[in-house]
Amino acid sequence: MTDAAKSDASRPDARTPRGFIDRRARDLVDERRILTAVSAVYERYGFEPLDTPAFEYADALGKFLPDADRPNEGVFSLQDDPDADGNGPWMALRYDLTAPLARFAAQNWETLAKPFRRYAFGPVWRNEKPGPGRFREFVQCDADTVGSARPEADAEIIAMAVEGLQAAGVPAGSAILKINSRKLLNGLMATAGVIDDGQKLAVLRAVDKLDRLGPDGVRLLLGDGRKDESGAFTKGAGLNAAAAERVLAFTAVGAGRGDTLGQLANVIGGSAEGDEGLADLEAIDRALTSLGVGAQGAVFDPSVVRGLEYYTGAVFEAELLLGTTDEKGRSVRFGSVGGGGRYDDLVARFTGERVPATGFSFGVSRLAAALRAAGQDAAAEARGPVVVIVFDEARMADYFAVAGELRAAGVAAEVYLGQSGLRAQMKYADRRLSPAAVIIGEDEFAAGTATVKDLDLGRALSKGVTDNAAWRAERPGQVTVPRAELVATIGKILDSQL
Amino acid sequence: MTDAAKSDASRPDARTPRGFIDRRARDLVDERRILTAVSAVYERYGFEPLDTPAFEYADALGKFLPDADRPNEGVFSLQDDPDADGNGPWMALRYDLTAPLARFAAQNWETLAKPFRRYAFGPVWRNEKPGPGRFREFVQCDADTVGSARPEADAEIIAMAVEGLQAAGVPAGSAILKINSRKLLNGLMATAGVIDDGQKLAVLRAVDKLDRLGPDGVRLLLGDGRKDESGAFTKGAGLNAAAAERVLAFTAVGAGRGDTLGQLANVIGGSAEGDEGLADLEAIDRALTSLGVGAQGAVFDPSVVRGLEYYTGAVFEAELLLGTTDEKGRSVRFGSVGGGGRYDDLVARFTGERVPATGFSFGVSRLAAALRAAGQDAAAEARGPVVVIVFDEARMADYFAVAGELRAAGVAAEVYLGQSGLRAQMKYADRRLSPAAVIIGEDEFAAGTATVKDLDLGRALSKGVTDNAAWRAERPGQVTVPRAELVATIGKILDSQL
Repeated sequence: MTDAAKSDASRPDARTPRGFIDRRARDLVDERRILTAVSAVYERYGFEPLDTPAFEYADALGKFLPDADRPNEGVFSLQDDPDADGNGPWMALRYDLTAPLARFAAQNWETLAKPFRRYAFGPVWRNEKPGPGRFREFVQCDADTVGSARPEADAEIIAMAVEGLQAAGVPAGSAILKINSRKLLNGLMATAGVIDDGQKLAVLRAVDKLDRLGPDGVRLLLGDGRKDESGAFTKGAGLNAAAAERVLAFTAVGAGRGDTLGQLANVIGGSAEGDEGLADLEAIDRALTSLGVGAQGAVFDPSVVRGLEYYTGAVFEAELLLGTTDEKGRSVRFGSVGGGGRYDDLVARFTGERVPATGFSFGVSRLAAALRAAGQDAAAEARGPVVVIVFDEARMADYFAVAGELRAAGVAAEVYLGQSGLRAQMKYADRRLSPAAVIIGEDEFAAGTATVKDLDLGRALSKGVTDNAAWRAERPGQVTVPRAELVATIGKILDSQL
Repeated sequence: MTDAAKSDASRPDARTPRGFIDRRARDLVDERRILTAVSAVYERYGFEPLDTPAFEYADALGKFLPDADRPNEGVFSLQDDPDADGNGPWMALRYDLTAPLARFAAQNWETLAKPFRRYAFGPVWRNEKPGPGRFREFVQCDADTVGSARPEADAEIIAMAVEGLQAAGVPAGSAILKINSRKLLNGLMATAGVIDDGQKLAVLRAVDKLDRLGPDGVRLLLGDGRKDESGAFTKGAGLNAAAAERVLAFTAVGAGRGDTLGQLANVIGGSAEGDEGLADLEAIDRALTSLGVGAQGAVFDPSVVRGLEYYTGAVFEAELLLGTTDEKGRSVRFGSVGGGGRYDDLVARFTGERVPATGFSFGVSRLAAALRAAGQDAAAEARGPVVVIVFDEARMADYFAVAGELRAAGVAAEVYLGQSGLRAQMKYADRRLSPAAVIIGEDEFAAGTATVKDLDLGRALSKGVTDNAAWRAERPGQVTVPRAELVATIGKILDSQL
């Protein structure tokens, strides 16, 4: 260590690894507030917390893992304790919270009270190319019900997502849960004669581009294929014209609740799976209504696809309707901040037995960033501690006693512990966003007083956010008060009775 | 996936990787309570939260990392995106929260308000052999002040640790912070002529065994060496007899505050570094006193060493005095649940400039386990949600409305969403530790009533923890009440006014 400090060449660079970031108070305050609020909603619905390890055996994760010497595509993986021949099990960091839940449920199935309802939050890792706002580690918060095939279990998950968004601070009317069912599209394709898995996937991918390409572009992708502006050709799903029109008619049904279900019945009817999907959505509609979730909170939207192949029934997506403007002044919609659906095959990977399951995952980091950008975050008001200025080194004990008194009253407070003078100490307090600085020098000690400098006021004045005269009348900026009134004086600055 | 489910052979095992565990509600309730309480203490002292990534570049972690092709000793590491020649930077999961802080401080030093005070919590990973109660992933919670050389910064860290333990639920008098200073031992060794780093380390290691071997064993280890019961020989530090006796006289000074400092002055005096260490401890003593931390909370104890080599001044250790009995009925002390100290060289690894720093780390998982074993955990009282029994499938909407009403009153509640009959539903409610089940069947719907079964009572009676007759008089086990009184009836069972 001391050796390393000797020469420049041997010193490591101080930087976060590519695609990873440090997060400071402001980011964390938002994220923790969201996690606390959403967890409280989940617990009120009877979901219990579960924490699984960061690592899983790579074969348990399944997805993303090709048959390769080093299964490191998409996930961060390493070989645990390889022997002399290089043999040893591969472990990988979890890339979501669903795969570990499936492993946990399979491992403990016999002893769990069923249906098993759990929520979980924590970081997940993706070994992908990072980009702006796209990191290789981020926080998710999930709730899942394992062991219930009832559509009401889906409805409950949707209701929790709606309530969770409100609890997280999204204003009423600024978010919507969109619901669809894989069974509807599957039924539609069955009546159109599509049974090949690859073709089904191509149809799902085509529909997923509706927002971007519009019906005409999607029509090409459902048929033979589409050439984009650059001239690049994307092979289509190969549906005939009649089948493609049926799919487009399906996706053209607008988002809504009872009315949408009625129209879907008209375009879908005929296949057993489609009818089953419709019955599921009808049951979800009834349960949502009795849970108090109306069309302003959750709607059926036939254009919602959701990428993951493992969904087998209802799929959900949470869309944030809040907008913001980017650095170029263009208005930006945040779009999806979470999603989920019914997956009935994940546990079967381990046990061979199909277990019905449904769940939802919040992208917490993304939601926090969206709320912050939209100015809806509580942390905008974040304040640092009251700083007790060190005027006289011989009086440290007294300064500590002052800070202790403030803390006992519930006020965050600290004694300045650097070596700088008064001016630098005031600057420090300002940079910490301290509401106030306490100054007790020779005069104050002699008179049994303390001087309080209102730093909130200083910042407000410098930003021009307030009427100087009115503020100055109420808050004189700096006052000297009897020592016994110090805590109450700070309380006035904090707008709280201490 | 469906393919995988077809044959046994291709199915992955559902198990956690070696040395990793799943944690369910009971473990997490304790841990979260501790983290929330300790974080609140840190924030009241003016420390801001910081979250660094799970990964650091391996060279930034330093410790544990030999010059090897695969730097995987002690840490979990992997190569990021290696090129065709296998070149690419190594990343490693953090093994503590201090090394990432040093990296962060070095990276942002110019723009930080200094001294920089941050707290952090989260998992850390050790690539070590797991054992009973010893895992490869566990949670730490740290607070550090970077950029203050003042002994008062150490005192503040100690005071926060004392207050943090109380806030975490450790009863008064059941924990003690033990303080020592590396400077004292260094000074002592300097006057004894020890200047070789290896020899110094051997002395520290010998003193660290005082608890286990007693003064006679340590005397051997300070001198030529010691043969243990098995005949294995440990080479000693090679001190001469006089020097060894001085070290032993130092460690024999009992734990205390002012009195201990007085005695240490007698055995230590003479070297500049020893005197400096003594002056530090005296300043720490004064600051602790003004922070209201007396000898029942923190003492000086010359036998405390702390393993990590990077400490350069004061060292602290939090010892839990709570005991428990193990499965064989033997009484067990938990011992250390955290520690820290002053380290002035960590940031210099990156910048070449010495930056004074001091901090403390709680072993949160360990503390939670200790409190649980000692019966001091709040979670012993954990209760599940009220379960609304599904008596009539056609009435799901009504059951959801009941659950919604309870949730609106702040009561965790759920509708049973499995497919089983009444008996299995009651068993489910019992396994979830539900306080009550709500039964609304044909009769109740007709009469506008609800039947409430008190499951807390059932569990209490079956455990014989209460006087049957008295409980039965107050809580009749099962009552049928008007629908409008349902929430209030549940409230009585929960002992809260709803």
